[in-house]
Order: sequence, then structure tokens, then C-alpha cells
Amino acid sequence: MSTFALSGATLIDGRGGSPLTERTVVVENGVITRIVPTSQYDASSGPEVLDVSGKWLLPGYINGNIHLLDGVMMMGVGGVEYLARYEGSFVKVIEEGAQLSLRNGVTTVFDTWDARDPVLEARDRINSGASQGSRIFAAGNIVGMGGPFSPDFNFNARQSISPTFANRIDALFSAGVGAELTLFQEKEVRARFRDYVQSGVDMVKVAISDHLTAHLDPVSMRTYHTFPEKWVRWMAEDTHAEGLPFLSHTLAVPALEIATDVEVDVMIHPTWTFNQVIPDELVRRIADRRIGVGIQPMTDDYSVKLLAHGNFWGALNSPEHQKNERNFIDAGANVMVATDAGCTSHDVLQDLGHDLWEDRPTTLGEDHFTWVKALQGRGLNAMGAIQALTHNVAEAYGKLDRIGTVEVGKVADLVLLNSDPLADTENLRDIAAIYKEGVAVDRSALPTQQIVTAPTGTPIPE
Amino acid sequence: MSTFALSGATLIDGRGGSPLTERTVVVENGVITRIVPTSQYDASSGPEVLDVSGKWLLPGYINGNIHLLDGVMMMGVGGVEYLARYEGSFVKVIEEGAQLSLRNGVTTVFDTWDARDPVLEARDRINSGASQGSRIFAAGNIVGMGGPFSPDFNFNARQSISPTFANRIDALFSAGVGAELTLFQEKEVRARFRDYVQSGVDMVKVAISDHLTAHLDPVSMRTYHTFPEKWVRWMAEDTHAEGLPFLSHTLAVPALEIATDVEVDVMIHPTWTFNQVIPDELVRRIADRRIGVGIQPMTDDYSVKLLAHGNFWGALNSPEHQKNERNFIDAGANVMVATDAGCTSHDVLQDLGHDLWEDRPTTLGEDHFTWVKALQGRGLNAMGAIQALTHNVAEAYGKLDRIGTVEVGKVADLVLLNSDPLADTENLRDIAAIYKEGVAVDRSALPTQQIVTAPTGTPIPE
Amino acid sequence: MSTFALSGATLIDGRGGSPLTERTVVVENGVITRIVPTSQYDASSGPEVLDVSGKWLLPGYINGNIHLLDGVMMMGVGGVEYLARYEGSFVKVIEEGAQLSLRNGVTTVFDTWDARDPVLEARDRINSGASQGSRIFAAGNIVGMGGPFSPDFNFNARQSISPTFANRIDALFSAGVGAELTLFQEKEVRARFRDYVQSGVDMVKVAISDHLTAHLDPVSMRTYHTFPEKWVRWMAEDTHAEGLPFLSHTLAVPALEIATDVEVDVMIHPTWTFNQVIPDELVRRIADRRIGVGIQPMTDDYSVKLLAHGNFWGALNSPEHQKNERNFIDAGANVMVATDAGCTSHDVLQDLGHDLWEDRPTTLGEDHFTWVKALQGRGLNAMGAIQALTHNVAEAYGKLDRIGTVEVGKVADLVLLNSDPLADTENLRDIAAIYKEGVAVDRSALPTQQIVTAPTGTPIPE
Amino acid sequence: MSTFALSGATLIDGRGGSPLTERTVVVENGVITRIVPTSQYDASSGPEVLDVSGKWLLPGYINGNIHLLDGVMMMGVGGVEYLARYEGSFVKVIEEGAQLSLRNGVTTVFDTWDARDPVLEARDRINSGASQGSRIFAAGNIVGMGGPFSPDFNFNARQSISPTFANRIDALFSAGVGAELTLFQEKEVRARFRDYVQSGVDMVKVAISDHLTAHLDPVSMRTYHTFPEKWVRWMAEDTHAEGLPFLSHTLAVPALEIATDVEVDVMIHPTWTFNQVIPDELVRRIADRRIGVGIQPMTDDYSVKLLAHGNFWGALNSPEHQKNERNFIDAGANVMVATDAGCTSHDVLQDLGHDLWEDRPTTLGEDHFTWVKALQGRGLNAMGAIQALTHNVAEAYGKLDRIGTVEVGKVADLVLLNSDPLADTENLRDIAAIYKEGVAVDRSALPTQQIVTAPTGTPIPE
Repeated sequence: MSTFALSGATLIDGRGGSPLTERTVVVENGVITRIVPTSQYDASSGPEVLDVSGKWLLPGYINGNIHLLDGVMMMGVGGVEYLARYEGSFVKVIEEGAQLSLRNGVTTVFDTWDARDPVLEARDRINSGASQGSRIFAAGNIVGMGGPFSPDFNFNARQSISPTFANRIDALFSAGVGAELTLFQEKEVRARFRDYVQSGVDMVKVAISDHLTAHLDPVSMRTYHTFPEKWVRWMAEDTHAEGLPFLSHTLAVPALEIATDVEVDVMIHPTWTFNQVIPDELVRRIADRRIGVGIQPMTDDYSVKLLAHGNFWGALNSPEHQKNERNFIDAGANVMVATDAGCTSHDVLQDLGHDLWEDRPTTLGEDHFTWVKALQGRGLNAMGAIQALTHNVAEAYGKLDRIGTVEVGKVADLVLLNSDPLADTENLRDIAAIYKEGVAVDRSALPTQQIVTAPTGTPIPE
Repeated sequence: MSTFALSGATLIDGRGGSPLTERTVVVENGVITRIVPTSQYDASSGPEVLDVSGKWLLPGYINGNIHLLDGVMMMGVGGVEYLARYEGSFVKVIEEGAQLSLRNGVTTVFDTWDARDPVLEARDRINSGASQGSRIFAAGNIVGMGGPFSPDFNFNARQSISPTFANRIDALFSAGVGAELTLFQEKEVRARFRDYVQSGVDMVKVAISDHLTAHLDPVSMRTYHTFPEKWVRWMAEDTHAEGLPFLSHTLAVPALEIATDVEVDVMIHPTWTFNQVIPDELVRRIADRRIGVGIQPMTDDYSVKLLAHGNFWGALNSPEHQKNERNFIDAGANVMVATDAGCTSHDVLQDLGHDLWEDRPTTLGEDHFTWVKALQGRGLNAMGAIQALTHNVAEAYGKLDRIGTVEVGKVADLVLLNSDPLADTENLRDIAAIYKEGVAVDRSALPTQQIVTAPTGTPIPE
Repeated sequence: MSTFALSGATLIDGRGGSPLTERTVVVENGVITRIVPTSQYDASSGPEVLDVSGKWLLPGYINGNIHLLDGVMMMGVGGVEYLARYEGSFVKVIEEGAQLSLRNGVTTVFDTWDARDPVLEARDRINSGASQGSRIFAAGNIVGMGGPFSPDFNFNARQSISPTFANRIDALFSAGVGAELTLFQEKEVRARFRDYVQSGVDMVKVAISDHLTAHLDPVSMRTYHTFPEKWVRWMAEDTHAEGLPFLSHTLAVPALEIATDVEVDVMIHPTWTFNQVIPDELVRRIADRRIGVGIQPMTDDYSVKLLAHGNFWGALNSPEHQKNERNFIDAGANVMVATDAGCTSHDVLQDLGHDLWEDRPTTLGEDHFTWVKALQGRGLNAMGAIQALTHNVAEAYGKLDRIGTVEVGKVADLVLLNSDPLADTENLRDIAAIYKEGVAVDRSALPTQQIVTAPTGTPIPE
Repeated sequence: MSTFALSGATLIDGRGGSPLTERTVVVENGVITRIVPTSQYDASSGPEVLDVSGKWLLPGYINGNIHLLDGVMMMGVGGVEYLARYEGSFVKVIEEGAQLSLRNGVTTVFDTWDARDPVLEARDRINSGASQGSRIFAAGNIVGMGGPFSPDFNFNARQSISPTFANRIDALFSAGVGAELTLFQEKEVRARFRDYVQSGVDMVKVAISDHLTAHLDPVSMRTYHTFPEKWVRWMAEDTHAEGLPFLSHTLAVPALEIATDVEVDVMIHPTWTFNQVIPDELVRRIADRRIGVGIQPMTDDYSVKLLAHGNFWGALNSPEHQKNERNFIDAGANVMVATDAGCTSHDVLQDLGHDLWEDRPTTLGEDHFTWVKALQGRGLNAMGAIQALTHNVAEAYGKLDRIGTVEVGKVADLVLLNSDPLADTENLRDIAAIYKEGVAVDRSALPTQQIVTAPTGTPIPE
């Protein structure tokens, strides 16, 4: 049943204007067809009316940066077992992740690094209705990087694991556009890149600056440029020519300059600059061009806890990083939710201990709420947070014609809240109902299968 | 059907005497009840007669030292994935291993290090007929050592894996008698030890000298004593009091002295002594006491290939090690097959490459044949090899009343060969039939499920 | 001038009795020849009288466990450069260390691990008057351990340094009685041991339990026995037969049991037991036999600071370790100063930062004062502390006939204080004068050459 | 005495033409003032005549790429001790290196990576006559790289050494233009770069592609661009504006493209391209522009020996690398001697063993001869080799107005050989005399002080 009317709610439509009280939203075949003051709505002529008076209606939430197979975890301990254990079940794990997100109001996710073929298969299965979960848009590999056992992500694992295994997994992720591209002539690289752009991915993410130095000793801080600037330029052009969004991975100010120059659509973690404050002029340009700014914040409390546990991730919350966050918000940039969350191994969560569960930024399902909490500490107001969680992601990725707001003609991805999110953004959690393409989500049934979320050692269901 | 007569074969009964031609062996309810010259046998009065003229009949083969979950592999790359992947399926993997052995004539194995509860469960399942495979006798942990992720076996893995996972697996192996015993007072250690002896294990193996230093740089060669000698002495006594065999793990001559003094039943790899030649007097004592000498040889060709691949295991075939092997053989010691083999990960075999498959000493199913080949290069003759593969193991472990020879009253574990093993020990592979407790083994049906032997990534069968 | 009379001081003679006020102590040719109440002393008949009324006179301080080439430092960063830089100058560095000690009242040190030949040369140079410094008694190597680049002390260095260099330095320390002894037959080991005992060392220290596991991951806590107990027994006997003290290195309760059984004279760090509380009965036996108990405490403040810096040494101040310290004190054991101090590299001190300088237990010259401060926190009273710093060390090492107290017939090693150490042990620092063998020490001239204490990069003086 | 005439030798003047027999070369005040057929020379009117009939006269040899403090060694074991031991003596060690070179005919060296201030001080001391040695031109740091303890050179050392020490040494090398530049804004980087260009260095070398990935596992082959291309472009411009040569460090074909585009003067190891064959078109451009091509070859024999010792440097002699070498030679590129040699630690040479001494490419003094031998195996003829060792280096570095050939007006840097180098390039070793700026070199007196070449542990002379 994807035809009905929701009547009486206060509508926060994602466009940033004042809430509209007492609205009736009509959904037909999964699309929003009318929005009128309830007092003007003639229920007799339309579909079944659900009375949602006293509630708040928002666009379905969108997460602009996740890795359903948990990518952040792969950079620490636990990734080896995870990849070994679920090797034959990656599609299922990705679906489990998409279901954890959907259960918490996220109707669309942008997966910006993952094993390409499994994530595309899961995407297709969800889109076709064969499985449930958030709608997935997927980038596959980060062009120029290796797989999870390459030094881009892990310096230790290959000391302990079979090369045959490591190479097979790495190839599944790097998918023909890995770090080896840095060695080849321009012509060959461009041919491989085009093949990749046309391989079914929904967007393309390029490592403008490198990743692996983040693993090296902090005394040797540095970052390199993966490709010559002119290569990055035609990568952007070739991606845009195919009608796809172009995403940047950067870790430094000079790389952000290049990303801005080549007109990326979305910047992933632009605020991570090895503790350099991004110049105001550059912040201004990024804001003016409406580039999606995928900030990855953490709460100050969480940062302190991490550092007390000797966990270097806590250092990401440096004063300079915070300043970068504030500056983007203050400049009115197109700030969007981008959490890096994924389906974390049960064992790794046990490792962390209860103390580090609350406010953990990358626990799928909780991640977007934690993001909002953290960025409010940097000056983002409630309406800004709601837009970052809906409209802004859709805008950055060029999907605003279909999702991101509650407007006539849009897909009926909706979240209905019991309490007012503008009064307190914690109310974004207070979900009464979720609709994806006009279909009510049975939250209690998700995930349909427990795999990663089951205690480790539980047999993987068929 | 476990009642029948095998008629006409040449009998090599495992006791070392001349082969007996044209014998008829009668099996009733799984036990050997008569052995007579075929010419004297009146078939009409007995069970069904199977004519096996022209063949050779031997006791079922016995392997005195294996680790069905592949323990040697855990000391290099590949163990992490293996343990992660099969964590919920250890019993099945152990059964698969026991089936690979049985398919190649091995009716009994002594598993001297393994995850205790899974190996005991597999043992019970096979004994009860719920599953197939070689008969298993199991030691569980090596008392005084940690699990596969402790430095006894692996210095690197814990850098890459979840502590929760590592601790859980380690505890499954160490089973209350791990390295932490070295820190406690004698009284407490003895109480824990007794609990372990009474926990259902079939034998007890103690680390008289340590293991972990084998992983350290070879410039720092050394070995330590895990426990005070007097502790080892009561460990032996308490084990014997329970009617169980006592096994030693040693890596040096001084530890062999202690093992001999405390009257161990079986010595595992006594020839590995960090390249010290064992004194003749000590070899003599070990031989005279009929202690089981579990040599672990490799062919010279294989050693050369390993070293060419930069694999340090090749160094185990040092001149001093070879001399130790020869000296035990020449002294008439109770030399027995002890291969360290296990169910090796498919990926790890791919890593090795074809070049290193032939003569690999630890490939389950092939291991006992490779052992015979390698030790013949040290002076063991064909009859000695056959006894090392049958009678000697049973004698060392105190099982000669039931297995190890073809004699009236013994369990009908039998291997029937198409060609004469005394003419060429390679004929030990030329198996016509295998009987375990009088039941013919359907070799083609083994293993009943492919898990480890299937290509990695194949879903684990229910 | 080593003949004179000190007149008028309050004498705390090291024997534990009440202070004796207004005493005159006569020194002739470096030996104490008379002690009388000043009122009974006829100055006209004797040597020159120095009026030290209002001061306190104590025996020269003694440190029962140091490593003049800084051994503790070699277990962390900095040892590589130190050993490289000073390779040709070890004797000078050792002398510098002995001078730092002497400047702070320590007239005798027992160096229980050091490069043997250099430390013996420095000892002889000081004894002969060719150089200055605390009187040195030296053990050379810890029998059974390797050198500073062996895994006994350092797991990383050999990855970065020349094997030729590493082997040369290691051999200088291990001096023929290194870890390789663990591999040999008893007869050969005993011959090598006897050679060592007769090589000019002043005492012999044996690794009853091993050292290297202290470097391994704390999840794998364990300790091994270097040698069979019966070997340790004849090591003690052979050492005693030569008239030398026998010292134990242990890290666990079972090893302490053996040390007690074989009648060691001195136990180095017996309280370090991997957080096991030493049984009362064993504490009792150690106390009753008057074995020297070389506790190595740290102040609670310092422990907290170390842990806050992520420095694992802080964990040595565990509750169990503290309890062991208290139990020895409460049992009236022969507790003695044993600090592990050495001449620390200037760079390493800079690494630590000011915050970790105060109360650092191993800074030579400060170390014995810090020791007293730390152990007073465990219940040691002022008189006990003074005895631990004088009498007790001499007693444990069998030197009480010559040093350790202020008595007629003893060598005139004396410390004269400006204020009362029984009122406040901090007054032990308030040194008015030091006499070694009756010769006043020119404290301001020590060290005679700055090598290690000079900023790194300063040329080494000829 | 720097005024004389050499009479009767066959002149190979470095310009590539046919040898000129029976020439007289007149040197006045260190400059070549006349070159005439001996038959036309009137000795009575000129300076003292030395009869060198039957000998061969060549320009002084020039090495286009060395690191007098041995930089290659710092990438393996031994660098830690070397830097610690000689920290206060770097100028002396550099002078020792320059003397080893000069003793073997090398009158000029280009030091392309070294501790800046020490190498400039040694340069000035040699130029002023305060010390002896090859004339030094020095680059100091490679812009964009860290010091010897950064991951550009060493991944392990910082685990074992004091941070204070490591940081001090690293800063001495990186000299304000280290890897941290990669994090800053363009404006700041340019200011720092200009300061460096004006700091007294003789040339500027920039890391166009990075170095550190060469240390990572070979399965993850890659290389990155240190700086955006436009930055490299102004680095070249600013360097040329200061009248200095601009050198590139590259490890890949794309970086070579950029180096060519920005008009570098000298390419260091352009043939190392992670086994990619450099496209013919690019080789052609490099040859046409007369860029100095600093090939670093090894003999095939040596490569085989290295690989047999498990030394990964052997892999640098890959077929693709050899092909790159051949292609540059065949294209007539300005191939020049560039050996990476330095003053290797005595210990490290012992580590290598005799087997690896012959043909070792980086043993200072032997290095240029080995270079010639290795490249003749790639098709370089004798005259080409002589030019690579003289004229070509001078041309590439823009010094041909003063050195590199024997021509009137040039500095009198001369090598006199006993036998014909065109007959056999091994005769380049057969040195009869060396003149630097017209002064005969007393080869037997070099080095004037043995420091690095003395056995390790020898005291450093004042």
C-alpha cells in the first residue's frame, strides 16, 4: 500500500522555511501528489487518511557518507576476522547495514567506499524489492587507493594473513582502479578510469590526497597527491560527462584547493587537514559553489574518552578541526551528514567497552543522531541540522529532484516524529513511523537477519 | 557388517616378524577372532569370506601426533582467517580432518594440541557413530602454553585482530592450563592441573621447555623451562595415576633429560634441540625405556625448496637434526609416526604454490606417507617404517592391547594393500580397502562435507 | 690525608641503635680506630681534630643494585645511540656514574648487570686511585641472559642496527654466559659457569626466571625458568665455593621459592611477581635467612604520572607489588636499597620531560634518596631507611666486616649531614661532607669529566 | 705549485672527439692556458715540464650524485649508530668522504642529499684550502622529504631511538623544507622555499614523487606526487631565477613527465619507475633537452648476489629498469655518473660480507668505476663512459665553463692514466697522477683522518 494521506502533522519539509502546521500530505503510488492545509483537504475524494495530528513530518533522513561493510573498523583491529568470516556473505552484511539505517529513519545512504560488486548487488536487490533497507547509492572503490589490506588502510594485517586471501579481498575492493594507477601512463589510466565510471557505480570518489600517511607516526605528518592535478581534472570531467557526482577524498588544504578547482560535487571529510585551518577564502569558495561538505564530527566528550583510552582517533577533534567545522557552518556551506558508519563487528564493540558506545560516531543506526549532536556543539542550529540530514545531501549529490524534501512530485520518503525536533534535536530519534517510497517500514522486523549484529560465532543464516 | 573373513592375503601383522603368506583373518563384531593359514580354514563354518588373495594385509595406520585444526599453519600466516571463518564449525573441521586421515588408511590419530572441547566433541561423535573418521585420542592444550594468538604461536596476529576475539579463541585452546600457570603457587597449579587431567582428555602433554623463543630471531637461540622440574614430576605422576599417557614438548637437550627422568610415555619432536646433538647416553636411555619418539622429519628435497623460498622451517632439517634422527633409529628406539599435520586452509596451500605441495610434511592424508619417505632417507628400513606407522604408536600410548597389530583379540582396524610395502614403501599408498572396527570404509565418500578442503569462500555446509 | 678525628657529631652508626650524641670518631690511614664521647677525647694525643658539632655522622651510603651503564634505559628508546656513541668510552662512562653516586654520599655501589670487562676495569681504576668514584663491586652479566640487543632487553633494536655492531656489543655483555647456555648439556654449562665465576667478578647473578617475557604483550603474562633447578643449585654452590655472593633475578613466586631453596644471598626485585602476592610463609623464610631484599619501589605520584604518559613502567607500582613491599618490611626482612639506576642519556631525559624528572627512581645520584622516599610510603621508618642504605646492603653482600657501619675497625666511609635524618629522611640529602676510606671527597669536582651528563653531541673528552 | 706543463700524453679531453696523441698541456695558477702538440711546444719559455709520455690525460672525474654521509645506508640497518656516533663530527666525515673520492680521481662531486649545514661547511673548508677533498656542490635536503628517521628513509628506527635525538637529526637534514610543507598553503610554502634557495646551497632537489612507498610491501607498489604540479613549476622557476640547477627526485613515469615539463636540469634515478618502461617519446624529449640523466645501475652479477642474500635492492636491476637504461643510452641522452655512494659504516660493510663487496655500487671511491662497468653492460661505449664521468655531469649542472673537459680556460682538474681507458675502461683505475686546480694530489695521504673507514670503536680524532 503506497497510496494514502497523512493528515494533521506539522510539516518540516526540508527546505528550511518555517514549519507548516496542520498539513495533509497525499501519497499516491509512492509519490507525494498533494500538500494542503488539513482544513482545506477533502478526505472523501482521496485515499485512506491516517490521522497524524500532533506529530511532525519530515523528509526521510539521508546519510551522505557511510561504508556498509564497516570501513573505519578495517583501519584498526577486527577487520581481518570480519572480512574472513563474511567473505561469502558480503551482500547480506550490506543489506543488514542498510536495514539498520532504515530502521532509524534513514531512507537513503551514499556508500562512498565499499567492495564494489557486493554493494551494487545489494543496491539492486533493495531497489528491486528482493530485500529491504535504505536506498543505496554506491561509489565502490576510492580511485587511487588499494583495498582493506593495502597500506591505505592497514599496515599490520598482511603480516598475519594469507597473501592469497589478502590479494583476493583487496582486488574485490580496488576493482581495477587501485593504487597501481599511480604508476601508469596517463592514457592507460584514463582508459581504466572510464571503464570504472561506466561499471554501474552511482558516483565516483577520487583520492586527491593520499590516505596511508594517516597511519604513520604523527611526528611525520604529511600528505601527498595521488595523481597529477591534470589527471584529477579529467577524472572530474569524465565523471560529470557520465552524469555522475564526483567526490573528493582529501586530507590537506592544498588538496582541497584542487578539489574546488576541478568542481567536485561532494567533499568527504574536508575538515581533516592535519590540523591546518582552512583559509577563509577557500571556505568561501566551497560555500558559494554549494559543494557538499561532508563533515565528520565527534562530540567533545567522546574525544576526551578516546584519548583517555589511548585511541588516536580522539585527536581528530583538534581545535583546528573544530575551527574548520565552525567556519563551514558560519559560512553557510552546504553542510551534510557524513558519518563513515558501518556494520561494526560485535567483537570490536566488545573491545571498546560500554564506556565508548555512547556517542560513538560510526555505529550504524545511531550515527546520524550522534552527528547532529556533535555539530550542534559547533553552532549548527536545529533547522540546519534537519537540512543537513535531508535536503543538503540530496542537493550535493544532485538528487533533489527526487528526494531530500517533502514536496509535491518527490518520492514519499518520510519520517514521522512524536515530538518536535526543532525544540530539541534529540527528538529526531522519537520516530513514530517511517515511509520509504510510500511504504510503511516495519521497524521491528529489521534487520531481517542478524549477521554482524549477532554475537560473533553465531552461524551465518542461509 | 563387521563380521567376515579376509582370505588369502599376505599378513604383515605389525609385530616385526616375517610376513605370513596365505592367511585368513576372521573378524567378528569388529574384533579379530582367528588368524589361520588359509589352507587350514574351513569357510563353511564361519562368516562370509572375502577373497583377498594376492594382496597384503596390515594393521590400520596410526599417527602419533597431529593437530586436526591445523596447528602448524597457525604459526604462520593464514591462521587468523581460519580461526575466524570456522569459529562456529570447529567440530566439523576436526571431523573433516579425521576423514581425510581415514581415507588414507589412518584408523587412529593422536591429536596432541587442539581446541579441547571441540576435539573431544568430535572424538565422541566419531566413537558413537554420529560421524565418521579416524578414531581420535586427544590431549587438548599443551599444559603451560597459551592459545594460537599467544606468543607461543604467533607474535603478529594480535596487532590486527580484536582482543575479544583473540581472548575467546585463546581461552578455548588453553582451557585453564595456559601460560599463566607459570605465575602461580605450586598448590594452585596442581589443583588446576588435576582438574584438567580429569576433564575427559585422553592424554596429557606438558611444555617442559618453552615454545615462543622459536619465533624470535635466530641469533638469540635459547629455550626455557616452563615449570620447575619438581612440578613436571608430579604432573607426570598425576597423569599416570589417572591412567593416561604423559607427553613431553621439548626443544632442547636439558629438557629431554628432565622428560626422561620423569618417565614420559611419548616425546614430541625430541630431535628438535636447536641444533645440539643429543648425547648418545641419553638416546640410549630413551631407547631402552621404550619411550615413543615422535620424530618429525622432512625430505632433503623439501628442505632445500623451503630454504630457497626463504621459509625458515627448512632449517629444521639441519645436519644435527638429521643426526638426532639417525641416532634414534640406530639405537632401536621406539620411533613412531608423528607428523604435526592438520586441515590446512585452501588459501595457505595456494600461497605455497605447487612447488611446495609435494613432500609437504603436514598435509593431512599425505603426511604419514611423506613421513615414511623422509625417514627412510635416515636409515629406517621398510619393516621399521611399517611398525612406526602401526605397532610403535600403539605401544607408546599404551594402546597395544587393542590396536597397532593384527592379532586375535585386537580391534579389526585393517589396511589391505594391492602391492607389497616391504618391496617399496610407496606401496603403503596402494590401498585396496580399509576396515575400521571391522567396517569397510567407503573412501570415495570422504570427507562427507568439504569445508576446509573446499575453495575458500565456499559457504560452510549446515 | 686520611688520618683525622671528627669531633662533636651525633653518630648514627648503622647498627640501628639510638643515636649517640657528641661523639668523636678517629680515622687513621682510612680506618676507624676509635669512637668515644667527645668529652672523653684527648685531642692533644691524636691527629688533627675537625669540629663537626651540631652535625650527624652516618656510614657512607651503599646502593645494592645499580647498572652504571644505564641498563633500564636500554630496555626502552635511547639505548642504541648510547651504546653506539660511547662504545669506545664505556670505562669513562662507568666512572662518571660512580662519581655521580659518590657526589651524593654513595661510597659503595653494587653493579649487578653491566658490560663485564669495562666495569671491572673501572672498578680497578677507582680502587687503585687512578680514577675517582664510588667503590664498585660488579657482577658483569646476568648468567643466562643475552646482551642489550637480545630479546632479554630489546625486541626492536635489531631491526635498525648493524648485526656486526649488535653482536659485538651483546658479546661484551653476555661474556660467555648468555642465553645460549640454555641449549647445552649440563657438563659444558658448568665448565663455562666456573670460568665466569673465576673471571674477576665480585659476585654472580643468575636469571632464575626469565626476563624477556616482560616485553611481551601483558595479556600473555608468564615467566619461565632459565635453567633446571638442579643447575641453579650447583651455580649457587660453585659461587659460594669461590667466596662470592650469589644473586637471583626472578619475576615470579615459583622462582623465588627456588632462589630461597638454593640459599641466595641477595634477591634483586623479588617483589616483581607479575602481580602475585608472595605467600607469607615464603616472606617469612626470606626474612629469617637474612637474604638481601632488593626492593625497587616508586612513589605513588610517580606511578600515576608514568601511567598518564602511557608508560608501562607505572604498572610496576601495582597493589600487589605494594603489598609485597609492605610484607617484607613488616616481616623485618633485610630490606636494602636497590635502585637499578644508571647514567641516563641526556636525550632520554629530554624525552621524559621535566614532569617526569622528579622522583624518577633511576636517575643516578638522586636514586637512593627517591628510594627512601618511596619506601617510607610503604611503612619503612627513618632508622630502617638509614639501615637499608648502609648496614643492610653490606650485610647481604657479606661485606659487613669492612663497610656498612661506623665501628672501630671499619673502613672510614662516612657521610656527615647538616640536619637530622631521623627527624626527616629528606635530610639525608643535606650533606656536609663525604669521606671515602678516610679521604674527604671534593664534591664540586665530580664528575671529573662530563660525558653522558653533557648535552648530547658534546665531543667525548680524551 | 700550480703552474707546470704536462708533456707527451695522449689527451682524451672529454668532448668526445678522437684522442689527441703527444699533447702538451700547460697549467698556470690552476688554469689550463695552452694545449699544443708536444712537437710544437717550446719548453724553454714556459713553466716546468713534466714528461708524461706514454700516459693518457683526462679531465678530473665528476660524480653527479653522491651522499657523503652515506644516505643509502641510512635506509637499512646501521644508520642509527652512524648518526649517533658521528653526530658531533659530520663535517669531518663529509671531508673523509670527499677525500676518498679525490684519491680515486674524482675532483668534483655533487652531493644531492645530506645534512645541509655540515655539508656546506665541509664544502667551504675544502674550497678555502682548510681541508682537502673533491670539490663539493651540495643540495642539502630533498625538498618535501623528512630526515633520515622519517618514514622517507626508515620505518623502524624511531621504535628504538630517543625522539629528542631523532628530531634533532631529522631537523638537521630537513632544514625547514621537509615533508611538513605538504600540509601548508601555497604562499607559505613558497616563502620557505625561497629562503632555502638562498641559504647557500649550490643546487635544489625536489621530491616530485615520493620516496617512502619504496619501503612498503612490494605488493602495494605505488608512488605519489609530493606537491601539486603548479608548485613544482614555481619551484623550478625560483631555483633558476637564483641561477641554480634544479634536480628532480622521481620514482614513476608520471613524475618524470612533470619533471620534463618544468625543465629540470638533472634527473636523479629517472630509470626507477616501479618497473614501468618509460615511453619512447618521453625518453626522446629528455634526451633532446640535454637533461642530465643520473642513472644508478648495478652489474647483473651483483644483482644476482643481492637477491640470493634476500636483499631487495637486487630487484632494482629488473628487466624494465635495464630497458630504461638502454633506451636512454640508445637515445643519446646526457647520461651521467650518479652513484648514490657515501662513507659507509665499517660495521655495515662487515655485515655485507666479502661476497658483496665487489661491484657494490655505493662504496665511495670505487663507485664511479663500478658505475662504468655496469653501464657498459647496457651498451655504453668507452668514450661514452668517459664523457659520462666528466663532461656530461658538468654540462647537466651548468658547470661546463669551468670543469668537465680539458680545454684552455678550464680549471686544471686532471687525471693521468698509465694505460688506455678506451682500450679497456678498467684502465680508468690505473691512475698515475691527479691534479685538482693544478695541484698534484698526494693520494697516499688520503684520507687525512680515518673516521668511518677505521674499524668501528676507534676513537674519533680531534
